[in-house]
Amino acid sequence: MIELVVLDVDGTITDQNRILNPEAISCIRTGVEKGIKFSLISGNVIPVMFGLKTFLGINGPVFGENGGIMYYNGNIEKFFDKSGPVKFLEYISKKSSATPYFTNQWRETSAAFSMNSEDKDMISREAEKWNLEIVDSKFTWHIMNRNQNKGYAVGILKKMFNLEWNEILVIGDSDNDNAMFQLPVKKACPFNATDHIKSLSDYVSEKSYGYEIKDAMKEFNIL
Amino acid sequence: MIELVVLDVDGTITDQNRILNPEAISCIRTGVEKGIKFSLISGNVIPVMFGLKTFLGINGPVFGENGGIMYYNGNIEKFFDKSGPVKFLEYISKKSSATPYFTNQWRETSAAFSMNSEDKDMISREAEKWNLEIVDSKFTWHIMNRNQNKGYAVGILKKMFNLEWNEILVIGDSDNDNAMFQLPVKKACPFNATDHIKSLSDYVSEKSYGYEIKDAMKEFNIL
Repeated sequence: MIELVVLDVDGTITDQNRILNPEAISCIRTGVEKGIKFSLISGNVIPVMFGLKTFLGINGPVFGENGGIMYYNGNIEKFFDKSGPVKFLEYISKKSSATPYFTNQWRETSAAFSMNSEDKDMISREAEKWNLEIVDSKFTWHIMNRNQNKGYAVGILKKMFNLEWNEILVIGDSDNDNAMFQLPVKKACPFNATDHIKSLSDYVSEKSYGYEIKDAMKEFNIL
Repeated sequence: MIELVVLDVDGTITDQNRILNPEAISCIRTGVEKGIKFSLISGNVIPVMFGLKTFLGINGPVFGENGGIMYYNGNIEKFFDKSGPVKFLEYISKKSSATPYFTNQWRETSAAFSMNSEDKDMISREAEKWNLEIVDSKFTWHIMNRNQNKGYAVGILKKMFNLEWNEILVIGDSDNDNAMFQLPVKKACPFNATDHIKSLSDYVSEKSYGYEIKDAMKEFNIL
């Protein structure tokens, strides 16, 4: 039986323009009332996730920066450091089209940037030399520490709530969800998910952009 | 004709527990598609408002800290300074039950705190001596600079979009909305509004906690 539902945000409970799907919000609400725990893990910054937790009534921890930082019960916990990503961003900003992203002022464990796509391979190779990774969340590029990913965050949740892997359902749609789709948890995705995420999923909904939440919750007997 | 709708957040598009009303989100969406401009003004911090703008598809500026700070078009603009409120909070924390609020780390123009209600009068009198004001947003207490309020923010919006007062509709429910309800704009409120806000409103809905948005938008011919 599913005890915890872990949701990606952009493209999973929102549309292509990042606007929240009201039906998905109602489904989360119903799930919370039934005693299911919900968590969000996103590439976004922790004050934005703190806001989403409040305004969606999320009852579990929320993670920002792809799992690098968590808000729960009035406390923020950082699992990684931003000094490597910040220094690397300074370095590549000088030698490529990489431009620091607006929300970096609120980042604590990573750095975000935009770039012209032709610089991707070079920046990716350079990141490896620095023992860092660059990850695409579709809305911006993220410089992450090694092992800083959504799979790491789901591991923290499993331990925190003393769960079995198969009591956890993850729902996501894109590359920065890969690490949590590698775990032996239950996995569902919307139709707008990448082919790779679809291939890893136990359940692929015919619906997209938040409308898959009801389907997935029914499939796993939560609704 | 209404060109701009200015919304309070907590208790106006959310329920008592601050959870967003899905119907209100859908109404905002429809209004945006019809070419109406929407803004949010809340006591919350600017990264949270930045997140709400994104996730609700708000097409106008959003203000945090009761109007002291604005996010629009990738820029943050501060209209007040936090040094007075921060020093005052340090001072009263030593001589009363006032306790700094978690989100102060993201505040730029004010300070927030919780307190035992018996300290309210004393702290209010002290704030006056410092040329500051304390304001209740129902979820926390805010130390504001003189003239830092939602009315000030609506004035900025009027100028920015070159509007007449009667082309602006404000919707709010509580004490920190008073200043914008003093303006010669159109005013609507939910049934859960304070008596004072109700007495200042052109339209009082019979519905509460976000369900009044559809009513109010119909009343002013937006829906």
